[in-house]
Amino acid sequence: MLSSVHKIKRLIATVFIVLLSAAILSPPSLAADGKLTGVRGTFFDFIDDPWKHVGDEEASARFYADGLLVMDNGIIKDFGPYSELSSKYPGLEVTSIANRIITPGFVDGHVHFPQTRVLGAYGLQLLPWLEEWIFPEEMKYKDAAYAREGVKHYFDNMLSAGTTTVQDFGNSYKSAVDIFFDEASKRNMRVLCGVSGLDRSAPADYCVAPPQFYSDSKEMIQKWHRKGRNLYAITPRFAYGDSPELMAMCGKLHKEFPDCWVNTHVSENPTETRNAPLEHKCSDYLGCYEKYGLVGPKFTAGHGVWLSDNEIERLHKAGAAISFCPNSNTFLGSGLFRLGAVTDPRKRVRLTFGTDMGGGNSFSMINVLNQAYKVGLCNNTMLDGSVDPRWHDEAQAERNKLNAYRAFYSITLGGAEGLYLEKLIGNFNPGKEADFVALDWNAGPSSMRWHQSLICQKPATKKEAAQLLFGILAVGGDERCVDETWVMGKRLYKKGLTETSAVPGEEQR
Amino acid sequence: MLSSVHKIKRLIATVFIVLLSAAILSPPSLAADGKLTGVRGTFFDFIDDPWKHVGDEEASARFYADGLLVMDNGIIKDFGPYSELSSKYPGLEVTSIANRIITPGFVDGHVHFPQTRVLGAYGLQLLPWLEEWIFPEEMKYKDAAYAREGVKHYFDNMLSAGTTTVQDFGNSYKSAVDIFFDEASKRNMRVLCGVSGLDRSAPADYCVAPPQFYSDSKEMIQKWHRKGRNLYAITPRFAYGDSPELMAMCGKLHKEFPDCWVNTHVSENPTETRNAPLEHKCSDYLGCYEKYGLVGPKFTAGHGVWLSDNEIERLHKAGAAISFCPNSNTFLGSGLFRLGAVTDPRKRVRLTFGTDMGGGNSFSMINVLNQAYKVGLCNNTMLDGSVDPRWHDEAQAERNKLNAYRAFYSITLGGAEGLYLEKLIGNFNPGKEADFVALDWNAGPSSMRWHQSLICQKPATKKEAAQLLFGILAVGGDERCVDETWVMGKRLYKKGLTETSAVPGEEQR
Repeated sequence: MLSSVHKIKRLIATVFIVLLSAAILSPPSLAADGKLTGVRGTFFDFIDDPWKHVGDEEASARFYADGLLVMDNGIIKDFGPYSELSSKYPGLEVTSIANRIITPGFVDGHVHFPQTRVLGAYGLQLLPWLEEWIFPEEMKYKDAAYAREGVKHYFDNMLSAGTTTVQDFGNSYKSAVDIFFDEASKRNMRVLCGVSGLDRSAPADYCVAPPQFYSDSKEMIQKWHRKGRNLYAITPRFAYGDSPELMAMCGKLHKEFPDCWVNTHVSENPTETRNAPLEHKCSDYLGCYEKYGLVGPKFTAGHGVWLSDNEIERLHKAGAAISFCPNSNTFLGSGLFRLGAVTDPRKRVRLTFGTDMGGGNSFSMINVLNQAYKVGLCNNTMLDGSVDPRWHDEAQAERNKLNAYRAFYSITLGGAEGLYLEKLIGNFNPGKEADFVALDWNAGPSSMRWHQSLICQKPATKKEAAQLLFGILAVGGDERCVDETWVMGKRLYKKGLTETSAVPGEEQR
Repeated sequence: MLSSVHKIKRLIATVFIVLLSAAILSPPSLAADGKLTGVRGTFFDFIDDPWKHVGDEEASARFYADGLLVMDNGIIKDFGPYSELSSKYPGLEVTSIANRIITPGFVDGHVHFPQTRVLGAYGLQLLPWLEEWIFPEEMKYKDAAYAREGVKHYFDNMLSAGTTTVQDFGNSYKSAVDIFFDEASKRNMRVLCGVSGLDRSAPADYCVAPPQFYSDSKEMIQKWHRKGRNLYAITPRFAYGDSPELMAMCGKLHKEFPDCWVNTHVSENPTETRNAPLEHKCSDYLGCYEKYGLVGPKFTAGHGVWLSDNEIERLHKAGAAISFCPNSNTFLGSGLFRLGAVTDPRKRVRLTFGTDMGGGNSFSMINVLNQAYKVGLCNNTMLDGSVDPRWHDEAQAERNKLNAYRAFYSITLGGAEGLYLEKLIGNFNPGKEADFVALDWNAGPSSMRWHQSLICQKPATKKEAAQLLFGILAVGGDERCVDETWVMGKRLYKKGLTETSAVPGEEQR
């Protein structure tokens, strides 16, 4: 008897899920090709850097309680209040997204796809952690089937976390990087990646000789750079793991392909920070990259926890970027990044925030914001001078405080600026690519709803929306609060569907 | 047409949920009163302190891949492998819990129920944060209806996070503390609480004069201490907020009611740590409590971030406890607790781990473990001597590393020992109260399942179970991984039921 009841329940549930999936996966606005489509909802994005508006961060954001985003084949054609815009577009097919805050898709500025399976591995600082956990897993990606499976998990996780743009480190194998770009193309995502250059401090089988690295990189650049939405980043993995010969190859590639990006690591861990300059006969870590002509616009180095003030100033002058990865910096114990030092308007450094998954133990940029907030506050207890009066610096402390504006700017428009992609993504300006997420401000832990109800039931003002966003960040929000993720005007993720369903079928490609 | 389809779908869904809820809320083993009941599943608990077994932490844990827990009216009667025990109990009504790891219920050693709604409040270190966010919210609990609502949310959140024992700070109103104990009694939970003594550094309306504090405390002790599972903690809120007169009242209560616990704060924030001893004319923060005879067994002070080595040694000698609250210490930027310093076997201090919700931004003890791990690793980058060779201390660094054994011990048996409750709760020894949780090691973010599959499909050994538990801790696990929570042999929480359904009905009381 129980067994029949169980079967009936399963049947009912299956019917229900199939009906629901069909309804969700084929909303009217997704089907029409070549036609304008619209999304109506509550929008929140940024038009400026909030660190330029200390005490008036609201001025950096834009908010429409009832807005309309008009898209033409994935490109934003118009954006504004629904009441003003709707009459301009009679007959527009509009998808309404109610009770959500729609922000631009998140930008993850520093991440390693072949570490997807070993994120959150136990117990070690950077160098032994690489040896024990990371290199063995990355080496599995020599196998194409494994690489395909891993890359699929990676993008599924990214989309469910609301991330639509990544700058990824790839690994030593061009075959795996090839699979990465192929999968990104199927989802039509704006991504950066490269073959990682590594010829020291790693297993011999995983090291690549500099000439091989050069030819692999060149092949991948020619195959993928600016093909669709793919961009290539020349990727010296990190100076401590790269010989002068390999670094010279990076410099050569950078000269031959000046349109490409450059992506690497800097000053993550104190031991590594001390050793890398010795390897390259430089006076500091950043100098290792400067020596080979790599530091300039479209250069990003991850971490920068132990950067000196002088290095920060050189990054500022070069127009180069740092990627702040607080989950990784605390999970590996690397240290507390000085956010307030790089956001000084007199020497502002371009920034992305990054998960650094697997050193960072989450795919969620919202979770990254949570940890970034904590890092800022921990730094401030030093900067208030109560421990050592010589460290007293109230202006820097103020800049360390990650309010909602600074936080969500940093993973949208700020991230785009960090990657020199602000003309393509980052906010809802016409001409940009329509990547966005619909956030449910109640969908975190069970404690979230009552907390948010203290603010409002539904945001009517920019300030209320910002307060709800801070609640998402601070009350354990993460991928649970990401209800939908849209890429180039198409919904690729809807919460509640199975992982497999979240992968776009051919009809969506 | 669409609307009818929608109605049908809702109807099907409703039928489905009602059937499912009925099946889940009335499993056979819950109904029988006065009869032995059993739970069969995979059990993991602790029989010793893993910090005593450096390099062989396994020795501290107990594991049955297929175990049986036999209960008599909520008290554990027997525990062991199913194959050995089942024949001793013919006809036993057994609830099987498949594909879960069952651990003792979690102990939250430091938490503030009247902050439930303002957890994760923006932007400040301890003292201004109290003024701006905390005191105004706590004062709302003067209203009995609001207090009842808040306390209900609080216990719902706790149970869904797998926490079955809390040591809570209450607030200044005995009426709210009364409601707290009443609600805890309805759920039959093992809790500690007290009227918080505060007569300085807070709004005048929220301060309580020492004689009033004395009589309120006495009334609550007489009403609630050792009534059911309730225990009373004499609660000087924190020395910086308590006058010498109020502290003297705490000393008086402690003498009159030596069976009661004492719960307070110590050395959370550097500014507070400097000022509190000045207020009480002591040479350090711990001295403020020693002066009034409060420091001994069953004394807990939260935080202890800035404790000196000398204070740590005095805590050890007194048999007193510290509650480590890493989410709070980072969310408020208080600092990085030296876990390795208090777990030195030569001067081991009893410990609980605590959420310190609302200074801590989560109800989940699993989330606390995640942050505790990060705090340990951040400390270790200092202790490896790479920044300052004078700080080199490898033994302390080793103790800072929160592996799965140390982690889950700390929130079960370790927490019970911290509260001097190890004879009542903390593991599955016969005679103890049957509070436990069933953990789903795949139920975190979408990245968790593939990660865990690297270890095993189902744990067959203690080591595999520990690795899965570490995965829960490290890969963004939190309340999502808590599938069921049982209190005194009754299931009070099952994931997937609505928040309201999680509150036990009269039939379960």
